[in-house]
Amino acid sequence: MTTFGIDLGGTNVRCAVVDDDGNILAEQRGATLVTVSWEELVAVMADLVRTLAADYEANAVGVGAAGLVDRDGVVHYAPNIPCLRRTPLRAALAKALDVPVVVDNDANAAAHGELVHGAARGVRYALVITLGTGIGGGIIARERVIRGAHGFAAEIGHFQIDPNGPVCACGERGHWEAMASGSALGRMGRERAVAGRFPKAVELAGGDPESVTGVHVGDAAQEGDADGLAVIDDYADLVAIGLAGLSNMLDPERIVISGGLVELGETLFVPVREAFARRIEGFEYRPRVEIIPAELGGEAGVIGAAALARELV
Amino acid sequence: MTTFGIDLGGTNVRCAVVDDDGNILAEQRGATLVTVSWEELVAVMADLVRTLAADYEANAVGVGAAGLVDRDGVVHYAPNIPCLRRTPLRAALAKALDVPVVVDNDANAAAHGELVHGAARGVRYALVITLGTGIGGGIIARERVIRGAHGFAAEIGHFQIDPNGPVCACGERGHWEAMASGSALGRMGRERAVAGRFPKAVELAGGDPESVTGVHVGDAAQEGDADGLAVIDDYADLVAIGLAGLSNMLDPERIVISGGLVELGETLFVPVREAFARRIEGFEYRPRVEIIPAELGGEAGVIGAAALARELV
Repeated sequence: MTTFGIDLGGTNVRCAVVDDDGNILAEQRGATLVTVSWEELVAVMADLVRTLAADYEANAVGVGAAGLVDRDGVVHYAPNIPCLRRTPLRAALAKALDVPVVVDNDANAAAHGELVHGAARGVRYALVITLGTGIGGGIIARERVIRGAHGFAAEIGHFQIDPNGPVCACGERGHWEAMASGSALGRMGRERAVAGRFPKAVELAGGDPESVTGVHVGDAAQEGDADGLAVIDDYADLVAIGLAGLSNMLDPERIVISGGLVELGETLFVPVREAFARRIEGFEYRPRVEIIPAELGGEAGVIGAAALARELV
Repeated sequence: MTTFGIDLGGTNVRCAVVDDDGNILAEQRGATLVTVSWEELVAVMADLVRTLAADYEANAVGVGAAGLVDRDGVVHYAPNIPCLRRTPLRAALAKALDVPVVVDNDANAAAHGELVHGAARGVRYALVITLGTGIGGGIIARERVIRGAHGFAAEIGHFQIDPNGPVCACGERGHWEAMASGSALGRMGRERAVAGRFPKAVELAGGDPESVTGVHVGDAAQEGDADGLAVIDDYADLVAIGLAGLSNMLDPERIVISGGLVELGETLFVPVREAFARRIEGFEYRPRVEIIPAELGGEAGVIGAAALARELV
C-alpha cells in the first residue's frame, strides 16, 4: 500500500509516495510561497498530490508542518510560514483531495519516521534530536511520539540552559536551541576566528573570519586541526547538557541525532558521548544510553508523515 | 479493597492502608535507619505491614523509594539511603510478605497519587512538580506517569538552567533543582538578609540573618513585606523557567505543584503564573496551561504507592 507524505517547510514543500517499508517511490517539490494566502498554499500541496496520484494510489496523506499544530491538524502558528495562523490545514486538504489527511508538527513527523522505519525502530523510549538551523525533535515514550495535550509537544530545543546566553529565535535568552544548534556551532567558530585563534577555519572560509560557518568548523576538525577539535569539544558539551537534562527527565534507552552535523560522524559523536557520560546523573548506576546517528536523514519528514497517514487507513 | 502504600524516605518509612477511593484508613511509621543493612530495612518495612495487616487485608503493597528504581523494583542508587545499592527491594519484600509488591521512585509514586486521586485526576498530559528540599515530580502522558526505559524517568529537577548557578546535590552546576527548590528560596532570602536588604526576615529569624529560611521569606511575603515579595518574584521566575521549558517539550494541560511552599497559596502562584506566561513559547497561540496546587499534600506518596499496588490485584 502507498501513502503520501508532505514536508511543509519555510522554503519548500515536498511530497513523496512511500510504501509500507518506508521506501520513497516518487516525489514532487514546490515552493512554499510564504507570501501567498493559506488557500493557495493548500492548492499547491493538493496539486503535488494529484500529480503523483496519476501513478500511485493516494490512500491517505500525512503532512509535517513547521509550526504549532494541534490534534485536529490546525496550524496555530508557524514562524516561517506567516500565512498559517489558526489555519485548518487538515480539514482544507482533506476536502480538496477527498482522502484521509493527518497534519502534525514536522519534527514530530520526522521522529515518527525514525521510530517506524529508522534508527529508533523497536525502541520504547527514545529521543530523536535534529541539530540544524534550530534544534527540533521528538520524545518517544511507550513506542509513540508524545504529542502533548494540544499536539504542541515538540519544542524540544526551547528550555533555558544559560540565562546569559544568546537570544533564541523564540525571543528567550539562552535556550538550548540558541546554544547548541548547527547555527550555534557556526557562531562559535566565527567568534574564535574573529579573535584570531582559528586560522584553519579562516583559510577554509576563503580568508574572511566573518564567513566561517559550522561546515568550516567541521571540516577543520575532521582534518585534525586542534582549534577545530577544541570548538567541537565545547560544542559537544553544550549538546550534552541538553541531552543529559532530557535523559534525567525521560530515561531514554537510545538517542538518535539527525541533521547536517551527523556527517561529522565520530568526530562529533565521541565527544558528545564523553560529555554526556559526565553530565547525566548517576551515570555509573545506569544502563548505557546509546547515542547514534539517524538513518533517514533529510527524508525522515516525508517518510514519517506518510507513516502517520498509514495509521488512518 | 485495601492495599498498602509505603513511602521510603531518607529519614522515615511510612506505611498506610488505603482504600479504593484513596482514603488512608490507618498508618504506621518507623525510622529508615540508614546505617543498617538493606535486609534489616526490609524487615522494618515488613513489620509495619504485618502490624497493619492485623486489622486490614494487605492485598498488595506498593513502595515509593527515594532513588533510582528500575522496572523490576531494584533500587540502583539512593543518595540518602546508602544501604540501597542495586538492591532487589521488590523481590525481598514480596518474599517476606508473600503478597504482590511493586516498587517505584517516590516522586513517581506521588505523581501517580495525584493522577489517580488528586489534582491531576482525569488529565491526559500533566506535570506534577514537588518543590521541597529538592525538586521532584512526574511527567504524565496519556494518563500514565512516564517511567522511561529503565524506570529512572523522574529526575525532573536535573537539567541545567544556569552554568554559573549553585552546585546541585548531584554534583552538576546550576540544575533547576539547585536554583528553584524550596531550599533555594531559603538561600535567596538568606543572601538578601546578609546583604542587609531584608530586615523583616531577619526579625522573623530572631535577629540572625544566617538563620533566615524559606519559611521566613514566605511569612514576610504573606505579610506584604516588599523585600519578601521581591524575593518571591525572583524565585517564581526561576520556577517558571523550568516549568516553561518542560511545557515547551511536553505540552501539558495542567501543572500540579506540591511541597511545603504550596502553603504560600496565591502569594506564590500568581507570580509563577505571570512568569510562566512570559517564558513559554507562543503563549498567545496556546490554550492556557493551568498551574494549581496539589490536593494530596504529604500523603501523595503513600496514596500513590497504594494505587500502584492496586494495579497488581
